[in-house]
Amino acid sequence: MKLYDGGRAPNPRRVRIFLAEKGIEVPLELVDMGAMEHRSASLTKRNPLQRLPVLELDDGTILTETIAICRYFEALHPEPALFGKGALGSALVEMWQRRVEMHLFLPVAQVFRHLHPAMREWEVPQVPAWGEANKPKVFAFLRHLDEALADRPFIAGDDYSVADITGLVSIDFMKPAKLAFPEGLDHLARWYHTVSGRPSAKA
Amino acid sequence: MKLYDGGRAPNPRRVRIFLAEKGIEVPLELVDMGAMEHRSASLTKRNPLQRLPVLELDDGTILTETIAICRYFEALHPEPALFGKGALGSALVEMWQRRVEMHLFLPVAQVFRHLHPAMREWEVPQVPAWGEANKPKVFAFLRHLDEALADRPFIAGDDYSVADITGLVSIDFMKPAKLAFPEGLDHLARWYHTVSGRPSAKA
Repeated sequence: MKLYDGGRAPNPRRVRIFLAEKGIEVPLELVDMGAMEHRSASLTKRNPLQRLPVLELDDGTILTETIAICRYFEALHPEPALFGKGALGSALVEMWQRRVEMHLFLPVAQVFRHLHPAMREWEVPQVPAWGEANKPKVFAFLRHLDEALADRPFIAGDDYSVADITGLVSIDFMKPAKLAFPEGLDHLARWYHTVSGRPSAKA
Repeated sequence: MKLYDGGRAPNPRRVRIFLAEKGIEVPLELVDMGAMEHRSASLTKRNPLQRLPVLELDDGTILTETIAICRYFEALHPEPALFGKGALGSALVEMWQRRVEMHLFLPVAQVFRHLHPAMREWEVPQVPAWGEANKPKVFAFLRHLDEALADRPFIAGDDYSVADITGLVSIDFMKPAKLAFPEGLDHLARWYHTVSGRPSAKA
């Protein structure tokens, strides 16, 4: 198999961190997103939606979408479980992964895509008012997450999970989006220090 | 257990269709979203994000997020499988469910929330230019979906899945968003006719 990787972009990084946590090595082919190579004929054939990452299996089967790729590896290599265990445990990881994705990852992406000059060719049309409207959404969810982290080490409970990966990548994505990590969210800061100190965070 | 339901809103409907396909009956408590009851103290205590549906288990455990609730029921009642089977089958359902959600369900919701006068209190601030910018995204994905459906009966393959539920609810959501079903997408129209004719579509 081969993973078409997008370098510094947040979705490719989510998959690389996931693989590092699992201890799985997959051959990577770096696609230069800055040069718009993810919109090349070769990549468009593999993913008509022109997004990365793309996983190509040995028989040519294509799998796209970050979380779908992660779930595939979870099924092949169940340990350590990053999508939770048991009916309720798995559902709670899914709940938190989706909350973080919809209320943090996506709003940070909107701020970046609609306000950063480098995104002019990527997000057509840029709607700066929509970028601005997402800033308070980001900070409201960070406060919510801080409260949730008051009584547990990781976002979905006692164990590190894919929800922490999405959370870490979202917060690191705040830097290019020019959003400052807010003061006074001590539980969130403690969690961020822990997860960003894991070796996988360098992936 | 009890499911706090939001009536005609699209996410609560996704869960009701899922339960109907599974043949599972869960006591529903209707929350009047038109009267903003999902922002009441009682609901906010259960879901600080003030969204529906909310599943409350007998021990008081709260589960939110449509797909997390559906996955919980899938784990308790595996048949018929609506999240796919096997590592690759499940990953392909996840891929399509997420593609439909991110590129159809979400853009239709943006059109509705940013352009419909009734949403003024829900989406603050409304950004009409962002609502308009989502219209071409909806139609581009419908064309993509039409092509994908040329060689198979359902969105993720041979079997009906949660991706079809998200697709059906998205297309029905186009009506209040004032988006017309486009002409000439015959595979999509055939699929829509099939899935909206299933008894579960009335849920």
